[in-house]
Amino acid sequence: MSDRYRAGLDTLFALSRDGPSLIGDGLAAEAPEFARLLVEFAFADIFPRPGLDRRTRLFAAIAALAAQGKAPAQLRWFVRAALDAGASRGEVIEALMQVAVFAGFAAAAEALEACRDLLADQASGDGRACPVPSAAR
Amino acid sequence: MSDRYRAGLDTLFALSRDGPSLIGDGLAAEAPEFARLLVEFAFADIFPRPGLDRRTRLFAAIAALAAQGKAPAQLRWFVRAALDAGASRGEVIEALMQVAVFAGFAAAAEALEACRDLLADQASGDGRACPVPSAAR
Amino acid sequence: MSDRYRAGLDTLFALSRDGPSLIGDGLAAEAPEFARLLVEFAFADIFPRPGLDRRTRLFAAIAALAAQGKAPAQLRWFVRAALDAGASRGEVIEALMQVAVFAGFAAAAEALEACRDLLADQASGDGRACPVPSAAR
Amino acid sequence: MSDRYRAGLDTLFALSRDGPSLIGDGLAAEAPEFARLLVEFAFADIFPRPGLDRRTRLFAAIAALAAQGKAPAQLRWFVRAALDAGASRGEVIEALMQVAVFAGFAAAAEALEACRDLLADQASGDGRACPVPSAAR
Amino acid sequence: MSDRYRAGLDTLFALSRDGPSLIGDGLAAEAPEFARLLVEFAFADIFPRPGLDRRTRLFAAIAALAAQGKAPAQLRWFVRAALDAGASRGEVIEALMQVAVFAGFAAAAEALEACRDLLADQASGDGRACPVPSAAR
Amino acid sequence: MSDRYRAGLDTLFALSRDGPSLIGDGLAAEAPEFARLLVEFAFADIFPRPGLDRRTRLFAAIAALAAQGKAPAQLRWFVRAALDAGASRGEVIEALMQVAVFAGFAAAAEALEACRDLLADQASGDGRACPVPSAAR
Repeated sequence: MSDRYRAGLDTLFALSRDGPSLIGDGLAAEAPEFARLLVEFAFADIFPRPGLDRRTRLFAAIAALAAQGKAPAQLRWFVRAALDAGASRGEVIEALMQVAVFAGFAAAAEALEACRDLLADQASGDGRACPVPSAAR
Repeated sequence: MSDRYRAGLDTLFALSRDGPSLIGDGLAAEAPEFARLLVEFAFADIFPRPGLDRRTRLFAAIAALAAQGKAPAQLRWFVRAALDAGASRGEVIEALMQVAVFAGFAAAAEALEACRDLLADQASGDGRACPVPSAAR
Repeated sequence: MSDRYRAGLDTLFALSRDGPSLIGDGLAAEAPEFARLLVEFAFADIFPRPGLDRRTRLFAAIAALAAQGKAPAQLRWFVRAALDAGASRGEVIEALMQVAVFAGFAAAAEALEACRDLLADQASGDGRACPVPSAAR
Repeated sequence: MSDRYRAGLDTLFALSRDGPSLIGDGLAAEAPEFARLLVEFAFADIFPRPGLDRRTRLFAAIAALAAQGKAPAQLRWFVRAALDAGASRGEVIEALMQVAVFAGFAAAAEALEACRDLLADQASGDGRACPVPSAAR
Repeated sequence: MSDRYRAGLDTLFALSRDGPSLIGDGLAAEAPEFARLLVEFAFADIFPRPGLDRRTRLFAAIAALAAQGKAPAQLRWFVRAALDAGASRGEVIEALMQVAVFAGFAAAAEALEACRDLLADQASGDGRACPVPSAAR
Repeated sequence: MSDRYRAGLDTLFALSRDGPSLIGDGLAAEAPEFARLLVEFAFADIFPRPGLDRRTRLFAAIAALAAQGKAPAQLRWFVRAALDAGASRGEVIEALMQVAVFAGFAAAAEALEACRDLLADQASGDGRACPVPSAAR
């Protein structure tokens, strides 16, 4: 195990209790070299760099992934990491609304849908503010 | 409930018997403010504007969503709305073929797949025109 | 010159006085086979199909190209074709606003910028409705 | 059945034992004309052209589809075709790693996930090179 | 001038000395209604919402726009706004490096290129850390 | 200069006489750390890996960049590298035609346009095969 790989895994675990799930199921088994390079590059070379705080990196990741709309599983992982890092569910939802301005409501709504259960507790608080009739009026 | 939100919901119901399904399941529960802004912006501010007819707006929505390939659930909703508004299944399929020119067959075929059941009746009519052998020849 | 190629060129000329500019400058010179296949596929096989009217095809093209944000020159060509076909500048702008809902204001604003001169006359009519201070207040 | 359609089907079968699955399930039933044009254009007009070898075409298809991240089913089909054509699982994984440079790890990892079972045998060989702890350390 | 439009313009000016340039040149002239809706939605409805701090919103905007790679002018505007809000050039570059993980080096490098002059002062400080030979060795 | 950076530069020079132009103008000056990571990751870690031949990597790069349509300068660089590596102009054009199937003619035509001068010699050979009338018939 290279030092870079070990450092990347450390970052993964530090970012989320569910750390290795990002690479644990699929990538590491079928494409271990791919997983190693992902861990080394993303989590050893880039993420721990000192020039930008963790919170902003996590929100940048969420915004980039939501705007692209390509990788719901990775988006979920970073939303969970942001919540683990102390971001509130409301902040994540606000970030996705911000993304809607640039990437459209289609991408933003899909992103919300992908993280539905992670953001669900939030709803109980203010769900009543926006009634949606469940049947035609 | 703001006037804009109410006006947006009216547009949703006018566009499809299945109106609120666009926001009813996920968005409204987890992110009511997101749902409210989506309804207000997309269906109160933009869609009912007088400068473009409903049919063209619906096909523009279908083309934009199919070209992006990010939000199959929203694409389905607008295909259903177009059918409800009197568009034929064949017209929707033709629009997706038109999209294939610009966004590629990959996006267009995924769009068709996402709306498969909605467009299925169409096939019974002319399915025989294009036989696909089900086994190697 | 194949029949399909000839039919495609006929469609190009029928769509816009500026017909062959879509392929005339770059594609036809460097990659004539590419240009031939584009003309045959897009303008002989797809565009003239009877199942969808020309106006809807043009707006679907505009919406798909604007949503993707990849090909401003082609977007311009189809905007010009839509104007030549009788669409008003206002209708094109409304279609781009509709695209903004799904693809974001970033893509829609870039699309408008790409077609700026084609849509400019429109502004003289109602430009006063939306004053933008040109200096800090 | 037109000559072009027949030629396209021949290419489909030549590319993969699972040839018609690309269009067999959804497209051919709901949208036979769409399926016919896809087969004719992609597999009669483009794929068999003499100017580029089959292997490079298949890898170009895989790279383009993985970079876009829109059509996992089509990506799977071309990965299978590449394996049928003699490419190794490792070569496909390397191509996806190459795509990661340009399209990001998000798209590349989703592409790998979409082809997981097709690429699984590969892992048994060198899976040990990259251990991922399954629990927090 | 509606209250929402006025509130949106206030946000624009508060975000950047160069506030109205985002809409001042193209949008407001050719498509004043488009500009008004953009200002109202993006800068009155979304940006000033209390649930997320300005800094995170700006970086989310930068990440979303860089990941999409569609709208360099808007990206520039938000980079300038982030610098005006106290972000350092290095932080912006780090955010773009973070985007490179998810959206690829292609999009990230294009984003950097689009903001080149805005980020240039940064280079003088540590440009020596990474010598690039200007001629073949 | 780290060993990985040096190895990456070696690959850059080996791929193209115009090697460092990929990073020489913009990236290295404004964002040297970004340039270093790009060179290390893309050209030291990924490109020289033994599991896939150089030709296929170059065509995968071209296909991925053309399909995305985000980074014409990087696409040009890889097209030049492919030509330097012995690919013919016709092969590059065929690869872009292959991309058109999946990503649409819009992206493919833009890609061709971006590499116009690099692919120009090709045209002289068979430009006569596909006459495009320069005026309305």
